[in-house]
Amino acid sequence: MAGRIDARLKELGIELPAAAAPVANYVPYVVSGNMVHVAGQITMLEGKPQHLGIVGADISVEEGNTAARLCARNLIAQVKAACGGDLDRVVRVVKLNGFVASAPGFTQQPAVINGASDLMVDVFGDAGRHARAAVGVMGLPLGVSVEVDGIFEIS
Amino acid sequence: MAGRIDARLKELGIELPAAAAPVANYVPYVVSGNMVHVAGQITMLEGKPQHLGIVGADISVEEGNTAARLCARNLIAQVKAACGGDLDRVVRVVKLNGFVASAPGFTQQPAVINGASDLMVDVFGDAGRHARAAVGVMGLPLGVSVEVDGIFEIS
Amino acid sequence: MAGRIDARLKELGIELPAAAAPVANYVPYVVSGNMVHVAGQITMLEGKPQHLGIVGADISVEEGNTAARLCARNLIAQVKAACGGDLDRVVRVVKLNGFVASAPGFTQQPAVINGASDLMVDVFGDAGRHARAAVGVMGLPLGVSVEVDGIFEIS
Repeated sequence: MAGRIDARLKELGIELPAAAAPVANYVPYVVSGNMVHVAGQITMLEGKPQHLGIVGADISVEEGNTAARLCARNLIAQVKAACGGDLDRVVRVVKLNGFVASAPGFTQQPAVINGASDLMVDVFGDAGRHARAAVGVMGLPLGVSVEVDGIFEIS
Repeated sequence: MAGRIDARLKELGIELPAAAAPVANYVPYVVSGNMVHVAGQITMLEGKPQHLGIVGADISVEEGNTAARLCARNLIAQVKAACGGDLDRVVRVVKLNGFVASAPGFTQQPAVINGASDLMVDVFGDAGRHARAAVGVMGLPLGVSVEVDGIFEIS
Repeated sequence: MAGRIDARLKELGIELPAAAAPVANYVPYVVSGNMVHVAGQITMLEGKPQHLGIVGADISVEEGNTAARLCARNLIAQVKAACGGDLDRVVRVVKLNGFVASAPGFTQQPAVINGASDLMVDVFGDAGRHARAAVGVMGLPLGVSVEVDGIFEIS
């Protein structure tokens, strides 16, 4: 069935953005063999960073979770571009690294990054289950609360 | 010789835990081709997180090193599961990323993560020598002091 | 043309250091298949760490950028060793992870890590364009301001 994942995105009410273009000497993804390495995606929505601040101080775990889901949406947009538009070529979400801008003493990084993990499984089903690291960092580009990068296997 | 690495573990007095089960929409490892990507492992021992706190404030470099060794033990348990129980299939420990919950001004992350690096070489010999990154972060899941993830090549 | 990248380095006035030797049970790089995983490189110059401190507090964005460029130089030195001295074997810079020791509220990690990204493109041209993550951390080994690790595809 062609467009299986596109249909699933529609069902979930998720509209992918145009994959953000590079703004420097790095690119949003590199395909090497059958692996796609996607650059760290932040909480961009229609060209503007969302969910700014430090989780556990400025913003809640719940909002952090929403931020992570938005990062994951942007990852999927990049993977779609890497696949020439055909997300059915995704064999497996291999690894996600989730970085959470964290207040001192904040230790619920997993609950935040679940926002990204859950979207991957919502969209790709079992192929969306991935290895993951979640850590709390001092700060992130543009002051966003969450950044997630990833490795995807494609056919 | 079958069970070479199991014998080495016994010699070292290291008993691997049952590989921890996933608690969310991510999994402890993904095998892609001949590479195993293992999720970030923390200092779990018999189901409880150990060595909580911030290195350089709450706990010492020495305890951090012990914490990293425990993370490495848990990584090996996951790799064993990924290999269907046969650790002799490990060709090479390729990369470890070590995250140390660090006090402001703490800069001995390498001495901490050596606890993980040393265990890999203790167990796998030269095949245990790996590329590595060690960084100091703001905080980690459940308040543990160290998290380590890794990439392993298997046959 | 043999020595194409060496010639480019000369043109840029960049002299690569001898690849730093391992100081522990980890190694500066691991070659697995056609991928080179390079350990986190810091701001070593002639055996001494440079650009110490926290970006946004002790040192400026501009100095951080210079620090990142130095890390990238050291990455290239390791890749050269991994290639048996022949940098023309580099097919693609696949991924860089940039860690910036950051003051609270500092959010210009991309401007810092551009120092590494720019050097990759200066040296390797389009093959130097890579996926990237840039995050702000609490602290780094030896008190350096920047650490960068990377994955390279070689032939």
